[in-house]
Amino acid sequence: MPKVEVCFSPALYPYLEKGDDTITVVIDVLRATTSICTAFDYGVKEIIPVNSIEAAMIHKENGHLVAAERDGIKPAFADFSNSAFDFMNDAIAGKSIYYTTTNGTMAIELATGAGKVAIASFLNIPAITQWLISQNANIILLCAGWKNNYCIEDTLCAGAIAKSLIHDKRFDLAGDSALSSVTLWNNCKKEPETMIRKSSHFKRLKRLGYDNVLSYTLQIGTSNSVPVMQGISIVNLSNANHNKTV
Amino acid sequence: MPKVEVCFSPALYPYLEKGDDTITVVIDVLRATTSICTAFDYGVKEIIPVNSIEAAMIHKENGHLVAAERDGIKPAFADFSNSAFDFMNDAIAGKSIYYTTTNGTMAIELATGAGKVAIASFLNIPAITQWLISQNANIILLCAGWKNNYCIEDTLCAGAIAKSLIHDKRFDLAGDSALSSVTLWNNCKKEPETMIRKSSHFKRLKRLGYDNVLSYTLQIGTSNSVPVMQGISIVNLSNANHNKTV
Repeated sequence: MPKVEVCFSPALYPYLEKGDDTITVVIDVLRATTSICTAFDYGVKEIIPVNSIEAAMIHKENGHLVAAERDGIKPAFADFSNSAFDFMNDAIAGKSIYYTTTNGTMAIELATGAGKVAIASFLNIPAITQWLISQNANIILLCAGWKNNYCIEDTLCAGAIAKSLIHDKRFDLAGDSALSSVTLWNNCKKEPETMIRKSSHFKRLKRLGYDNVLSYTLQIGTSNSVPVMQGISIVNLSNANHNKTV
Repeated sequence: MPKVEVCFSPALYPYLEKGDDTITVVIDVLRATTSICTAFDYGVKEIIPVNSIEAAMIHKENGHLVAAERDGIKPAFADFSNSAFDFMNDAIAGKSIYYTTTNGTMAIELATGAGKVAIASFLNIPAITQWLISQNANIILLCAGWKNNYCIEDTLCAGAIAKSLIHDKRFDLAGDSALSSVTLWNNCKKEPETMIRKSSHFKRLKRLGYDNVLSYTLQIGTSNSVPVMQGISIVNLSNANHNKTV
């Protein structure tokens, strides 16, 4: 039976056992992976992660759309910030967006060296779970965290996905991180917002004036997006006619 | 008000904020820090952590007592393994023991470069909490883990200590790791053994035939030991006449 593990920080990723067919699912609830799901809901063609502000600026100068964020703030040159609200825009349909963030795209880049990479947030838990079950491979749920520090909101999302995967005994929990994540999710699932409001990352966003995003990010199953890396791009493997379920 | 943070792995320790007066408390429930508390209960004079089997062998050749473990197993040359049961021996009273383990002494060495270092296990939670309160400094509870991987038993112990420290509002929780640890402890405190029996580390010990140690390690407050690094040695700062409370 395939196994699901949770990795609490990109800094711990090198220590996890990985096979050639392991799928790494990157989770950055506040904000990159929630935003990526939203962008696919609005029909974006592809998202191309880039690892530096300098690289993002070059893509902008070459006429491409760019989303960027460092330490929670959008650089002036970028078209979009890291907020899901920026991607709720029908004008992005069919377009390519180059994307760089403090934590999320860094985690994606790290995982890309190790096998298949997918993207998850609370929004697309049912859709990504269904796709993962169809792959029948070992899974690492990689929490992007904040500058390699553990983040509770990513852990709760990982716990919710791990719980979906072990339902019907299709997957085993691989280790203690997965066991802790599922236990935390079971403990908080009735009111995850209460827990996440205590988190360091949420407090940081609130200081920056972004405290209106939380209720949106905690909606489970409002997106049918199945974002998966193919080559240098994230594309949407969803079979649904419409990505937005609401 | 001073803060208490939890670090889930030695690999995450470099990313945590630390001041000159930060106290790092190393936790390796299965087994090093439980064994160190036990050794002080039986009157050992000092424990000197060493970072390699080779260094430990040299100390043995020079006539010193040596405790050693790698991957759960005692090397043949060592006087003691990493099990607390090995230190329940009145012959160690007044002696120095050189000590090297897979995870615990590595974590101690890592923390030693960053300020004051203390040692905790479930056994000495009340004693170490009392000492930490008297120090009035920021605290990092460093889970030794297993080869840099997260371990649930160390997290539960950290959660129990953090909960004791925030009682009476003497300390604040610093971040998400501390919040998660306290939440997990609150969730499991009635039956921590049930959770720890599911842990990777316990299953590893059980495969090695050491499954009789768990109930001993989960006894809260049976030791008055306050093991603290001074120079190259861990010594006991307990004021109690007798370390064993039972």
